[in-house]
Amino acid sequence: MTKLIFDCDPGVDDAVALFLAFASPQDLEILAITTVAGNVAADLTARNAAVIRQIAGREDVPIHAGAQGPLVRAPIEAGHFHGESGLGALPLFEPARGLDEGHAAQVIIDLVMAHPPGAVTIAATGPLTNLALAIRIQPAIVSRIAKVAIMGGARREGGNITASAEYNIYADPHAAELVFASGVPCVVFGLDVTHQVRADPARTAAIAAINTPAAQASTNLLEFSNALERDIVGGTGAPIHDPCVIAWLLAPHLFTLRPCDLNVETASPLTLGHTAVEFRLADPSAATVLWATEADADGVFALLNERLAR
Amino acid sequence: MTKLIFDCDPGVDDAVALFLAFASPQDLEILAITTVAGNVAADLTARNAAVIRQIAGREDVPIHAGAQGPLVRAPIEAGHFHGESGLGALPLFEPARGLDEGHAAQVIIDLVMAHPPGAVTIAATGPLTNLALAIRIQPAIVSRIAKVAIMGGARREGGNITASAEYNIYADPHAAELVFASGVPCVVFGLDVTHQVRADPARTAAIAAINTPAAQASTNLLEFSNALERDIVGGTGAPIHDPCVIAWLLAPHLFTLRPCDLNVETASPLTLGHTAVEFRLADPSAATVLWATEADADGVFALLNERLAR
Amino acid sequence: MTKLIFDCDPGVDDAVALFLAFASPQDLEILAITTVAGNVAADLTARNAAVIRQIAGREDVPIHAGAQGPLVRAPIEAGHFHGESGLGALPLFEPARGLDEGHAAQVIIDLVMAHPPGAVTIAATGPLTNLALAIRIQPAIVSRIAKVAIMGGARREGGNITASAEYNIYADPHAAELVFASGVPCVVFGLDVTHQVRADPARTAAIAAINTPAAQASTNLLEFSNALERDIVGGTGAPIHDPCVIAWLLAPHLFTLRPCDLNVETASPLTLGHTAVEFRLADPSAATVLWATEADADGVFALLNERLAR
Amino acid sequence: MTKLIFDCDPGVDDAVALFLAFASPQDLEILAITTVAGNVAADLTARNAAVIRQIAGREDVPIHAGAQGPLVRAPIEAGHFHGESGLGALPLFEPARGLDEGHAAQVIIDLVMAHPPGAVTIAATGPLTNLALAIRIQPAIVSRIAKVAIMGGARREGGNITASAEYNIYADPHAAELVFASGVPCVVFGLDVTHQVRADPARTAAIAAINTPAAQASTNLLEFSNALERDIVGGTGAPIHDPCVIAWLLAPHLFTLRPCDLNVETASPLTLGHTAVEFRLADPSAATVLWATEADADGVFALLNERLAR
Repeated sequence: MTKLIFDCDPGVDDAVALFLAFASPQDLEILAITTVAGNVAADLTARNAAVIRQIAGREDVPIHAGAQGPLVRAPIEAGHFHGESGLGALPLFEPARGLDEGHAAQVIIDLVMAHPPGAVTIAATGPLTNLALAIRIQPAIVSRIAKVAIMGGARREGGNITASAEYNIYADPHAAELVFASGVPCVVFGLDVTHQVRADPARTAAIAAINTPAAQASTNLLEFSNALERDIVGGTGAPIHDPCVIAWLLAPHLFTLRPCDLNVETASPLTLGHTAVEFRLADPSAATVLWATEADADGVFALLNERLAR
Repeated sequence: MTKLIFDCDPGVDDAVALFLAFASPQDLEILAITTVAGNVAADLTARNAAVIRQIAGREDVPIHAGAQGPLVRAPIEAGHFHGESGLGALPLFEPARGLDEGHAAQVIIDLVMAHPPGAVTIAATGPLTNLALAIRIQPAIVSRIAKVAIMGGARREGGNITASAEYNIYADPHAAELVFASGVPCVVFGLDVTHQVRADPARTAAIAAINTPAAQASTNLLEFSNALERDIVGGTGAPIHDPCVIAWLLAPHLFTLRPCDLNVETASPLTLGHTAVEFRLADPSAATVLWATEADADGVFALLNERLAR
Repeated sequence: MTKLIFDCDPGVDDAVALFLAFASPQDLEILAITTVAGNVAADLTARNAAVIRQIAGREDVPIHAGAQGPLVRAPIEAGHFHGESGLGALPLFEPARGLDEGHAAQVIIDLVMAHPPGAVTIAATGPLTNLALAIRIQPAIVSRIAKVAIMGGARREGGNITASAEYNIYADPHAAELVFASGVPCVVFGLDVTHQVRADPARTAAIAAINTPAAQASTNLLEFSNALERDIVGGTGAPIHDPCVIAWLLAPHLFTLRPCDLNVETASPLTLGHTAVEFRLADPSAATVLWATEADADGVFALLNERLAR
Repeated sequence: MTKLIFDCDPGVDDAVALFLAFASPQDLEILAITTVAGNVAADLTARNAAVIRQIAGREDVPIHAGAQGPLVRAPIEAGHFHGESGLGALPLFEPARGLDEGHAAQVIIDLVMAHPPGAVTIAATGPLTNLALAIRIQPAIVSRIAKVAIMGGARREGGNITASAEYNIYADPHAAELVFASGVPCVVFGLDVTHQVRADPARTAAIAAINTPAAQASTNLLEFSNALERDIVGGTGAPIHDPCVIAWLLAPHLFTLRPCDLNVETASPLTLGHTAVEFRLADPSAATVLWATEADADGVFALLNERLAR
């Protein structure tokens, strides 16, 4: 059983990742959901997390809102990729349970310090602002966090928000640099691997055939992304970025990881948020960052289907 | 009566500034001293603040330690300019009263939010890390802080730590940029003005002649800085940087201020921490930053003498 | 018949590219070889070009030395990848014909201006310093050059000299940025495509079986690179980067090209020389840069074998 | 007698500097005027130099046009500060003698190499593009140039084009960095010193009273600048930047110089073109750059008056 803090900015694919996590109580004890400004503004990501929580029937999990913008740079928006609400075309409602008190960064600190070293894992599928703030306020958490599983960055796949940068890292490059440089163990799922895991028609249809609220909402979300992928990128089946992070926590054999040095560009406008991934290491065993290079996409979707059916 | 949070990194000249503030209870209600890594490491600046507090007989004021390093960049040290302890050659002792609970950034948030808008002023004489963290965690403080009086930066005087940067801003340029860009009202005392306020022999002798513990300790501190100024820079009388901030709070007529735009270099190694001060404004009345251009040095020392004699 | 200026920094793979060009007089009229500091120092690249020319029996082609270092940045060296001489283990000799008068940049200007617009093509397999200087001195050449076929950059393959940069561009990023921004039509063969074209044992053996001086020298050069590839990278068969440029001039159907915007990082140490390749263009038909994405490696080697056998 | 190449971008104050140089044949043998894009476009600066030459009656001096834009960055314009023509309100005419053949950079190379080492001095009052190109094409000139006297940069005075940069350096920061880093001996007259030398009403009136074509044209030019200074900056008497360079060549005792390290910011948009001037040198005698700190403004104008009266 993994004790998990899930830091996210839902966001269409964050929402599917949340459904996957909520549907896996035998594997994941979700200590808290923490939210951050990212795909949409901070008040929307917190609200969206609560909407997804209610659909999943997991009001037992607290949600804490966090950073309202990036650490240093000016805020950017992900634009139309998540719709105005951040949840595409999903019908929204006022969640019955609201947010809990306490800033996300402080909640991360308190939970990590309240558990034994190595006990708490963090999943991070948005900009890394909350975790960066937590590390700066209480550096002692670095050696107590088991690992941080991150969706972010790109190496082989160039960028999506700019030619050389992926959205989550670009949205707060200073926070990302701070996290990677802190020495906290990180496992990073960038576009190299998430672009391998696409909701093609057959996979989407399979989820649509599952008669649970989570599966039906996920279908709605995937179809929103797939339509954008078709209309804007010209591709078939949008990548499901954020669910890769949870899929790896549940079934690590689905991914190939490689030790690396990872530095984030924070200085230059042209390459801002670029992840410089270096595999040529003097001592790979000393690396604190693992970079995902290959995914078993069928395996990820099989896992997703199985869990959404619960 | 100004309600003051004094954020500092003592540091020789921070210490003199602390004496000046402690000796002015009719003017300044010091809500808290908050400390930050800067001139020396975080544990030393907190300890030094407590030492100075005890010499000043002001154990009524709480001290809260804060950030142990800069927001994003790697830590730097001020080296020999403050001695190994951070307080030059001042004889040290274990303070009778220790530090209070609570991280400096959270204390800043709590104090600002607990008082009415415009009630709390902040003096900042070290790297701006604590204030930056506080603003990022709780942006609502920006519109509630009366003003932030800052020692930092340089325009006419080049830099002191590098050719183009002053130490406090260089030590955490990202924090400084965040603070100046936040819109919080700032009054900035850079090298342009602190280099006008020097502890020349006559001024130092006048303080040495005052028979109070604060004056005697200040003399010790000033003589330490003056010796370095003479041996390293070849100058007579070290600038008393940080006391300018408190002097302005007590006697604003001693300084000339000019509205400006102020941006901090965070991107380039060569000019990292440089303060780009632009006086040519479309609307000077909309400026949130005032830059000190001239000081009445005799007036500052007269004020210092008067207060240290109390 | 393509009128060609071949700007290079031999260099092991430049040498093979030179052999390929020299062996193709029916297709390429080589107006001049121009050399630049790059893989090794400027005096060595010029000398090496003359050595290769003599082995190829093409003393009819003039060689002009050019820039002794990059446009703005400090010089770097490619280290052991080309051996001390720049030509691996190839036995050297004093060339019978020396260099011609005239700086490479001026020769480029003079040749381009002496021919009708669109008549002269440039192959560039080293840092782009000479071409950058030529463009800055005589901007009129931009609209007269037919195209520049360049070995440089990386998108999918990360970098080779750093995590995010390829050697030729990294060695003079300012020159590269200048060339790409000038509007001169460019076709760029980066690591994405050159890493597809490897001298594996069978291909190397096939060249070794050809009994011409050029084939025998090429075998010597390829075996040098293959040994380094095996010992340092752990790979089988070194990529033959520079010959791709000439192969494309001779047989464009061997490569797939895609229009792009290409900007070079010149500002940040972390990503210096990174090529930001953006395929999402408002108007692909207006792109002046084409990026090679796929190579027919067997086709390239078939071409190389056929020509080296002549 | 100083053998001089005068590289300039006239420009109102370049024009006055030209008059001063042309009027000093006993002191300066002007080998060539070379022009560069800067205050106005390249064709205008060359034309303007010829206009000034004719007014001065010095058609014996050749003029060679040079770089049409900066080395790497996109061109900027100085806007209204020099008027549409570049010569303010000065009545223009078609010069009787046109430009000479040969690019400015090549002319610099040829003249420096044709004279003994240490024989040729360069005055540079525009962006340093021509000299940078010359050094890159023929590095041997570095050790043969006696010195380069440059108008550019700012330390105490902030910037004029941006908060932290002076126009000439900002217009081509890469060229400036290249020149300063080359090791060629430089004497630099930045805003720190040129702002001390202002054409106040009395000084302007004194020149207006001189009945020579050069003095009358200079008066016209100074009045143009003075009007802008009054209307835009709110100051009395515009600084005469470029004439300081020639004044120092004629009367070095009028200026105080100080050895420094000088690096130019080329990486960051905020501080682009900033001159980082470091006086704290391990070995001042090894410095290749001297920075002007003080000017005898009355002495400069006395010299100007005396020469314009000839």
